Amino acid sequence: MTVKTGAISLSTSGNSDTHDITREVARLVAKSGLEAGMVTVFCPSSTSGLTTIEFEPGALADLKRMFEELVPADREYKHNATWDDGNGHSHMRASLLGPSLTIPFVGKTLTLGTWQQIVYVDFDIRPRERELVVQMLGE
Amino acid sequence: MTVKTGAISLSTSGNSDTHDITREVARLVAKSGLEAGMVTVFCPSSTSGLTTIEFEPGALADLKRMFEELVPADREYKHNATWDDGNGHSHMRASLLGPSLTIPFVGKTLTLGTWQQIVYVDFDIRPRERELVVQMLGE
Amino acid sequence: MTVKTGAISLSTSGNSDTHDITREVARLVAKSGLEAGMVTVFCPSSTSGLTTIEFEPGALADLKRMFEELVPADREYKHNATWDDGNGHSHMRASLLGPSLTIPFVGKTLTLGTWQQIVYVDFDIRPRERELVVQMLGE
Repeated sequence: MTVKTGAISLSTSGNSDTHDITREVARLVAKSGLEAGMVTVFCPSSTSGLTTIEFEPGALADLKRMFEELVPADREYKHNATWDDGNGHSHMRASLLGPSLTIPFVGKTLTLGTWQQIVYVDFDIRPRERELVVQMLGE
Repeated sequence: MTVKTGAISLSTSGNSDTHDITREVARLVAKSGLEAGMVTVFCPSSTSGLTTIEFEPGALADLKRMFEELVPADREYKHNATWDDGNGHSHMRASLLGPSLTIPFVGKTLTLGTWQQIVYVDFDIRPRERELVVQMLGE
Repeated sequence: MTVKTGAISLSTSGNSDTHDITREVARLVAKSGLEAGMVTVFCPSSTSGLTTIEFEPGALADLKRMFEELVPADREYKHNATWDDGNGHSHMRASLLGPSLTIPFVGKTLTLGTWQQIVYVDFDIRPRERELVVQMLGE
């Protein structure tokens, strides 16, 4: 049993910008040399999050709308009043979605469904350079 | 330290159908022979999710209503316009709830609270045969 | 590779009371003697949850409002009708946020972002004594 830690670098545009990172995670799992175990993808950020989705334009547009309706951008936030950075809604959406995703792999392969991809969502309001942590534990 | 991977098979009816899988997960943990570690339950699906809840009819009805209100079924979704499968809301609810749950176990026992059960929620709109991944890492 | 399990005790006041547990989790990771691995924090409770946030008063007030708007306290819940304990909304909020958070650590240090803290949110409606499970797997 061993631990391997990797990273995924992304240039994001913000405002619920979505990135399919499935291939990158699968590549890091394959490269680890581990046969079976868990991979955790983690966002070291308080304005972005992770989940899985069928990564097609319709579902991505629906996801963007869902967060816009549940946590609207165009209203006041106490966070903005304090820091004047205008991304109070980004923080709320990120806290709601969560920064962490753990997926088992078996036979060096992620146990994802056929129509299921790992999606990183950047809720911030400006372009960012992001580096996600990808850690595998297994044997 | 070792890895053990099991599965739970479920026949679901969809439309926020809920299943208490606590006993099955506990059984797989006990069967693994591991004393302490983490179990990850994972849905290889983009229309269902996992969380914990007090598994009693009142809370389950409230959960169903909550998702119906937060992400209504009876409106248009871009996903539906593209694929015509009518389950756009199922995808959104699943992405919001999340496909993965990690729970520590100690003394071969899940560290759940007294009134806390592991619940699988199938948001799809038709009956499905599901197989969840259950993976334990521990010693 | 080994497993270490610790705990964090909290006195909470309920009603979306928030606690920054970052320092406690970091201390348990450092104390474990492990160099790299995953830490899972788990709430053995069906009325509280975990996420990450920029732990400052503005964002905390926004978080409280978000949950009040998404899952209001002042309406009927079937859970309350059955049990008459008045915390139906607490159960719903906890199920939505989730009871578990997994974070990689490297060089004995959590891979959190600069403005990102681990926050425990107690949605229950009265003061509670809570004990969170903190489990590390690593080497």
